[in-house]
Amino acid sequence: MDAIVDRALRPETIPERNPVPPFDLVIFGAGGDLALRKLFPALAQRNQEGVLPEESRVLAIVRKAEDVEGLPNQIATRLKEEGLAPEQIAAFLRRLTMVLLDALKPETYASLKKALGKSERVRSFYLSTPPDLFIPICENLAKADILTPTSRVILEKPLGRDLASAREINDAVGRILPESRTYRIDHYLGKETVQNLLVLRFANTLFERSWSSRDIDNVQITVAETVGLESRAGYYDKSGHMRDMVQNHLMQLLCLFAIEPPNMLEAGAVRDEKIKVLKALRPIVGPDVQRYTVRGQYGPGQIDGQRVRGYTDELGRASNTETFVAVRCEVDNWRWAGVPIYLRTGKRMAQRYSEIAVTFKPVPHSIFGGTSACDRLDANRLVIRLQPNDGLQLQLMMKVPGSGRLKIVPRQLDLRYETAFNERTPDAYERLLTDVIRGDQTLFMHRDEVEQAWAWVDPIISGWQEYAPHPQRYAAGTWGPSHAVGLIEREGRSWADPDFTE
Amino acid sequence: MDAIVDRALRPETIPERNPVPPFDLVIFGAGGDLALRKLFPALAQRNQEGVLPEESRVLAIVRKAEDVEGLPNQIATRLKEEGLAPEQIAAFLRRLTMVLLDALKPETYASLKKALGKSERVRSFYLSTPPDLFIPICENLAKADILTPTSRVILEKPLGRDLASAREINDAVGRILPESRTYRIDHYLGKETVQNLLVLRFANTLFERSWSSRDIDNVQITVAETVGLESRAGYYDKSGHMRDMVQNHLMQLLCLFAIEPPNMLEAGAVRDEKIKVLKALRPIVGPDVQRYTVRGQYGPGQIDGQRVRGYTDELGRASNTETFVAVRCEVDNWRWAGVPIYLRTGKRMAQRYSEIAVTFKPVPHSIFGGTSACDRLDANRLVIRLQPNDGLQLQLMMKVPGSGRLKIVPRQLDLRYETAFNERTPDAYERLLTDVIRGDQTLFMHRDEVEQAWAWVDPIISGWQEYAPHPQRYAAGTWGPSHAVGLIEREGRSWADPDFTE
Repeated sequence: MDAIVDRALRPETIPERNPVPPFDLVIFGAGGDLALRKLFPALAQRNQEGVLPEESRVLAIVRKAEDVEGLPNQIATRLKEEGLAPEQIAAFLRRLTMVLLDALKPETYASLKKALGKSERVRSFYLSTPPDLFIPICENLAKADILTPTSRVILEKPLGRDLASAREINDAVGRILPESRTYRIDHYLGKETVQNLLVLRFANTLFERSWSSRDIDNVQITVAETVGLESRAGYYDKSGHMRDMVQNHLMQLLCLFAIEPPNMLEAGAVRDEKIKVLKALRPIVGPDVQRYTVRGQYGPGQIDGQRVRGYTDELGRASNTETFVAVRCEVDNWRWAGVPIYLRTGKRMAQRYSEIAVTFKPVPHSIFGGTSACDRLDANRLVIRLQPNDGLQLQLMMKVPGSGRLKIVPRQLDLRYETAFNERTPDAYERLLTDVIRGDQTLFMHRDEVEQAWAWVDPIISGWQEYAPHPQRYAAGTWGPSHAVGLIEREGRSWADPDFTE
Repeated sequence: MDAIVDRALRPETIPERNPVPPFDLVIFGAGGDLALRKLFPALAQRNQEGVLPEESRVLAIVRKAEDVEGLPNQIATRLKEEGLAPEQIAAFLRRLTMVLLDALKPETYASLKKALGKSERVRSFYLSTPPDLFIPICENLAKADILTPTSRVILEKPLGRDLASAREINDAVGRILPESRTYRIDHYLGKETVQNLLVLRFANTLFERSWSSRDIDNVQITVAETVGLESRAGYYDKSGHMRDMVQNHLMQLLCLFAIEPPNMLEAGAVRDEKIKVLKALRPIVGPDVQRYTVRGQYGPGQIDGQRVRGYTDELGRASNTETFVAVRCEVDNWRWAGVPIYLRTGKRMAQRYSEIAVTFKPVPHSIFGGTSACDRLDANRLVIRLQPNDGLQLQLMMKVPGSGRLKIVPRQLDLRYETAFNERTPDAYERLLTDVIRGDQTLFMHRDEVEQAWAWVDPIISGWQEYAPHPQRYAAGTWGPSHAVGLIEREGRSWADPDFTE
């Protein structure tokens, strides 16, 4: 990433838009949920901002003939929902080329080859498909001689379902495209707040100097959803929440939180540091899974006053798949030894929010009164809120105004991005898609990261088969099973549940 | 100070009011500006809050017979201006006893003795008079046998005009009352924000752990007024701004900023730590006054679009008295060695504001780009704002949202007391007056503090006679003479002038 540090920049200033080089972006799975919900809107947004050069194209791969006609209409409807003006929708659709192709049939790739022609534009292939198509698509692209020396491939999550399958994909893709042109996407890395985490740490001495076991007592990473199973029943029930959320999103947040300062904000340096964190994660194996992890599955309950069904009711059959995971992690390195990092994520929880809450060590001694008052001086806490109301919150202890006895209470210093900047917060995919075209891998995962994350996750999942075959029940609309509370409370700490009274 | 740490306390909670013990408070100089503007309103406010027991009295000493009638009316008018209800004004006036007395005439003290009677209430004598009356009043009180074993005396600033005169007062008063019953007032210590400085430092590990030369680059203490000479011409022109503001208010702010953690928030412990800071202040003597201090006097100029006269025009004659002082201080101790503390205070400046701005060290290396970007990463800054809009501001570097190049700009996390607490912010004198009656000296100055501050100030004032006999001119409505800018800029730093664009 190229950095501009501009102290004169005021909210009204529009950040400069750098056009990307001319490109052809091929989307496999163009009729799928992700493409419609995220990819096309992101591209149309960037197009509207003038970042996509005139000659660039988006090629949408569909398997059924009727989609050649139907998909553009669906896209137009979708873009209208996003608030794009009719002329902007039309402008985006002019870039769109529909390509009929069956990913598993090599003979059908001629259509794509023809559509791409002999252009020297950067070719990117976005595989927005299940992972079992990654290898055949790459092989078929190679066979059809469609890959140019600068072509790159974007792999959506999940990248396999364990270390073995991830390795198989990485090996097979690696035989066709080098690592430097393989982009493993985790859209959390494209979120503004996640990127800001790097800026927060490495552009601010106040925090970075306190960023270690010397000053930090514990860290909590929470990704709580209120949605249930939704439309992904088949995939989700086979995978479970650990594979769906922890192995990728939460591990990436943990890495960015914990890395050592890279020499430069540049793909190799950042990824090397992340891998070091993953390697330092203490393995949780065998009976330890009972001690350091909690598996949950939601039952019926209430969310926002609405009764909602339990997981197995939604699924329509019995299941031992977890919809909630809590883990107590330790990073065994010089900086973090002794600082527990608690992960917690689930579906159908009380509120939708994601945050990293950093609790600093308490004061060593209270000058304000006896030992009881000392015990009750809350420790400082920095909350990096990813959603909703993304921003920062720093909890300090303050004196209550008044001439009576000295009273000390926690109060927050707040910064919400929405009010601090007049900028629209771009969707994660907007940044990530243009990064691919620009050839910047900083916000993508190296194969070693993905595999190292699986290597840490796999023993927990297999440990569960023996030690936690049945997930703990929790009522929908709560903060998860009571064991998750026990996980942290038995160490004298508490979850930093969000205070929405503000 | 007794502390209550109450994490459940919400803004709507009214802090508990502890009634003070029954008292008689005698105010010398009751017809003066300070008494009318501050003391009576503070007492009436506390009375309204039910903190003053029914049998307590306020005895107002006046020298002229007509004031016995006139002053209560003046007080009533003043309290009305403060927004007190008629019944509250009447309730306060019922506590008021007018006493006719000439402070310099021992024979007139009989009236006070009679008025006080034989009550065993705590007697406090507030000497809201010029310092040359302190000794005669104390002596006359003693002669008239008015002082009881618990009687206490409150001395207003200025306490002398140099070390010798301060010692003389302290010695003379000390022969009559012990140090433990002598209250030297500096109303800055009663300000909410100033008291909060102690809480901020000693109830929050995040800041206290960074509170040293390891993490702090420089500190700036600014007390800027927009008013000019006002009604105090005689006193002010003889004293000058160094004696009027620096020797007391700014030195006290510096002390509270810099002290080591006291064992307890208790008068002896806090005052011992403050004295240690004063003793560690590096003396500025002889030609060094040219290098480390700036003396200014305002000329004509504009404030808020209004033309205002220069100091000598207001005064009506030539004068070399300074109305502005800037000093570069160093505290030669383990914690602060090498951290410059810049003081700046003046009349007729561009804006009325007081703050302590703590600038942390810059990042050691920018991972975000070349050396030029590194140079431009602003250091973190914590601003403790005393007025206006008292509160905290923490300046961090943040990423500007957007998918283009990474842009990093300074942004503020804010906490304003007014919005964080629903409490009325009490005036400094409200707290200080009840502290006297309670017998709590924590927020008052020990004689050693006052003398040590004079010992540091005296050589600067005498150095000026030789090296800076004529103060630098500055236009009213500016930030002081250009030399004050040079004082800090030549060390590669800048004044943190307030950004009121927020």
